[in-house]
Amino acid sequence: MTLQVTVWNENVHEREEPEVAERYPEGIHGAVADALTERGFETRTATLGEDEHGLTEAVLDETDVLVWWSHCANDEVSDAVASRVVDRVHEGMGFVPLHSGKNSKPFKRLMGTTCNIKYRHGGETERVWVADHGHPIADGLPESFEIPSTEMYGEPYDVPEPDRTVFISWFEGGEVFRSGLCYRRGRGRIFAFRPGHEEYPILHQDEVQQVIGNAVEWAAPTEGSEAVWGEVEPANRED
Amino acid sequence: MTLQVTVWNENVHEREEPEVAERYPEGIHGAVADALTERGFETRTATLGEDEHGLTEAVLDETDVLVWWSHCANDEVSDAVASRVVDRVHEGMGFVPLHSGKNSKPFKRLMGTTCNIKYRHGGETERVWVADHGHPIADGLPESFEIPSTEMYGEPYDVPEPDRTVFISWFEGGEVFRSGLCYRRGRGRIFAFRPGHEEYPILHQDEVQQVIGNAVEWAAPTEGSEAVWGEVEPANRED
Amino acid sequence: MTLQVTVWNENVHEREEPEVAERYPEGIHGAVADALTERGFETRTATLGEDEHGLTEAVLDETDVLVWWSHCANDEVSDAVASRVVDRVHEGMGFVPLHSGKNSKPFKRLMGTTCNIKYRHGGETERVWVADHGHPIADGLPESFEIPSTEMYGEPYDVPEPDRTVFISWFEGGEVFRSGLCYRRGRGRIFAFRPGHEEYPILHQDEVQQVIGNAVEWAAPTEGSEAVWGEVEPANRED
Amino acid sequence: MTLQVTVWNENVHEREEPEVAERYPEGIHGAVADALTERGFETRTATLGEDEHGLTEAVLDETDVLVWWSHCANDEVSDAVASRVVDRVHEGMGFVPLHSGKNSKPFKRLMGTTCNIKYRHGGETERVWVADHGHPIADGLPESFEIPSTEMYGEPYDVPEPDRTVFISWFEGGEVFRSGLCYRRGRGRIFAFRPGHEEYPILHQDEVQQVIGNAVEWAAPTEGSEAVWGEVEPANRED
Repeated sequence: MTLQVTVWNENVHEREEPEVAERYPEGIHGAVADALTERGFETRTATLGEDEHGLTEAVLDETDVLVWWSHCANDEVSDAVASRVVDRVHEGMGFVPLHSGKNSKPFKRLMGTTCNIKYRHGGETERVWVADHGHPIADGLPESFEIPSTEMYGEPYDVPEPDRTVFISWFEGGEVFRSGLCYRRGRGRIFAFRPGHEEYPILHQDEVQQVIGNAVEWAAPTEGSEAVWGEVEPANRED
Repeated sequence: MTLQVTVWNENVHEREEPEVAERYPEGIHGAVADALTERGFETRTATLGEDEHGLTEAVLDETDVLVWWSHCANDEVSDAVASRVVDRVHEGMGFVPLHSGKNSKPFKRLMGTTCNIKYRHGGETERVWVADHGHPIADGLPESFEIPSTEMYGEPYDVPEPDRTVFISWFEGGEVFRSGLCYRRGRGRIFAFRPGHEEYPILHQDEVQQVIGNAVEWAAPTEGSEAVWGEVEPANRED
Repeated sequence: MTLQVTVWNENVHEREEPEVAERYPEGIHGAVADALTERGFETRTATLGEDEHGLTEAVLDETDVLVWWSHCANDEVSDAVASRVVDRVHEGMGFVPLHSGKNSKPFKRLMGTTCNIKYRHGGETERVWVADHGHPIADGLPESFEIPSTEMYGEPYDVPEPDRTVFISWFEGGEVFRSGLCYRRGRGRIFAFRPGHEEYPILHQDEVQQVIGNAVEWAAPTEGSEAVWGEVEPANRED
Repeated sequence: MTLQVTVWNENVHEREEPEVAERYPEGIHGAVADALTERGFETRTATLGEDEHGLTEAVLDETDVLVWWSHCANDEVSDAVASRVVDRVHEGMGFVPLHSGKNSKPFKRLMGTTCNIKYRHGGETERVWVADHGHPIADGLPESFEIPSTEMYGEPYDVPEPDRTVFISWFEGGEVFRSGLCYRRGRGRIFAFRPGHEEYPILHQDEVQQVIGNAVEWAAPTEGSEAVWGEVEPANRED
């Protein structure tokens, strides 16, 4: 069954900064969605400016995995939509925040921490190393790949100890960062991926698209077991 | 240096139900605080009905570990105080929610999950098994101890996979539950302990008091390293 | 692509105890293999008495997942074959030890602990609870299932803290046990499943077979990334 | 109570290479032991060439934490002594392998993996970043510290996913490495610390000594609970 992916983007830089618009003429969401469509996923997009930010119950009903890009407008996401996303993750929807999507309301609520980092603009080389060479999100990758110019993120990264550390980045300026982290909350899988800064064509880069595609497959809902909550009779009653 | 502990309690059942008041004449907070004072901690109490629920910045400035009991009034805790507690945990304060304190705003925000369970009233035996016999929260305990009558909590327990599973409970009616779970969020340590239902004298029980005392010691803040957040110059700049 | 499963069994109880032979006329390995074949896997068996215990390099070359049952003859497995199995797990082969397979040389070497437990013969009820309702090894299961008569295993279980705790068992006699635990070692996935005592028809039970089938799918090798070991030139050399 | 530390060293480079002997006139073990004695621990040393490698049962009886340096002679450690060390860790002794002590028999047996890495000689700068700023092994450290010249270790590091990732190193040549990892096996705590190559005066460096001292405190045995193994009567028998 083809996985259904919704790529959400605040879509602000693209509208306000000509260089970003030129780099991503269909928006960052468009670029990511195209890459995922090419990889065989059924893909749609949604943006902040749409009604309910485009993340209605109906859209989420048809979303196996939500890929999320946000940055300057994280606070403009309504609490109601943020809660809806969190609830869906608990119920099994995959969630893949990219870059500063780590500051989004849904991700911070799912983590329970500040998600603070250090950072630096200016454009420097990042080399993304695979730390967990047996992880499916690393499928088909070389042992490392380089992003020629990017914003730096540095440790400490104030998130809970992850289930798996898939990638660790090296930065030209001397810092390191856990760039690909796996979590589960409720039935839902979360993969936080660092790359994706809007000032460079990072989301057009093949390795980056491959990671996002792998992450979508990994984060797809699985059936799991029945779960009963609330007041119950003794399990031993039939004995 | 003596650890400073604040025992917080909603203090509602004690005021509204004569049996609970009789069982805990100083309140659940009073009973827990007495037990911790006897174990050598510097202890104070705070309750929902106080100004800012008794959890002012000044009180938290003098709190190494916050022990928390709540149940029916979880929703009456203000968002501001809940956020204050969460912030303090991120900065290093220990947090030990007891029993249905697992439904408190601070715990749920720190976990990022629903914290759902199944449950049953009526009074049945619980046997609390040590699963992690090398953990300091199990110091001095037998391999298991029995709570003669309690409310049952059953799996699944919708929390993130814990750092350590210290206790697992067996219930007469046929269920099991992970009764003692360790987490870290930011610099702060969290230990969620299941026992403590108000309808039975559980918090007067020696093993239960010992676990809470052990948890306070384990959850105490440690110094850690410097942490720098925000925009930075390259670490390599001095080269 | 159809997964290739090898079901290994020491095959001693079946040859020495008529009741076990009657219960498992094709051996425990035969019963498990049949169940997996019915679920669509390509299945073969191997036993202790065969040359190289039936686990030659050629057989392992065609094994995606190795299911392992052992008990009284754990010490008779040669160190060479145990090492071969461990090496294969490091390279990606899935490994699913059943019941006292937790005392096998490969499992103990992969864990690095004693794998000690407490136990009791005599036949009592076990109720296996799903603790991780979102895990694929729980796919399609009810919230719990009962094994009418079994040997008891009790905590503490001296294994490393698992990646995920999928099942926790309740025993009639008052004990609990983490019955389904997930690990990774190198590229390989390991799922240790408690049920399967030879004195009862447990491996004919539908839920047990379903768990083993789910575990085989979960433990199947994935591609992962390239990994380079040993002496290397600087990654920055092309700069 | 003063912690008792044994610093073990293969003591081969110091005897065979004049530059190493000059750098560490009392041996690497002597330098580390001195640093720990200054920090208030009761310290002794042991080396490969001694009877039973200096790790007799009597010595281990008086060892709370074993710090271990080894490199070229890892294979010369007898299986019996390696097993003895592993057994002691299971029983609660702390274990702190330094640098290529990650290839020692005890560490590899405790991990259950190959512990493979990539490496490079030649002397380049390493910057050790604190990833877990709330961890006691980072107590009192700056957010990072630099080792001016060292051998490089690079990811992937084939170890089990750690309980906590305390340090991540940046290398001048473009690699990264998880330099400080926490594990527990049985009752014992393990901290694997990367720095310590014999060709540079790294073990004389203050931050490195501080980390080792912090690790000794962290790895010290704690009491834990009673643990009963083997055949048992039902826990419910007294009911």
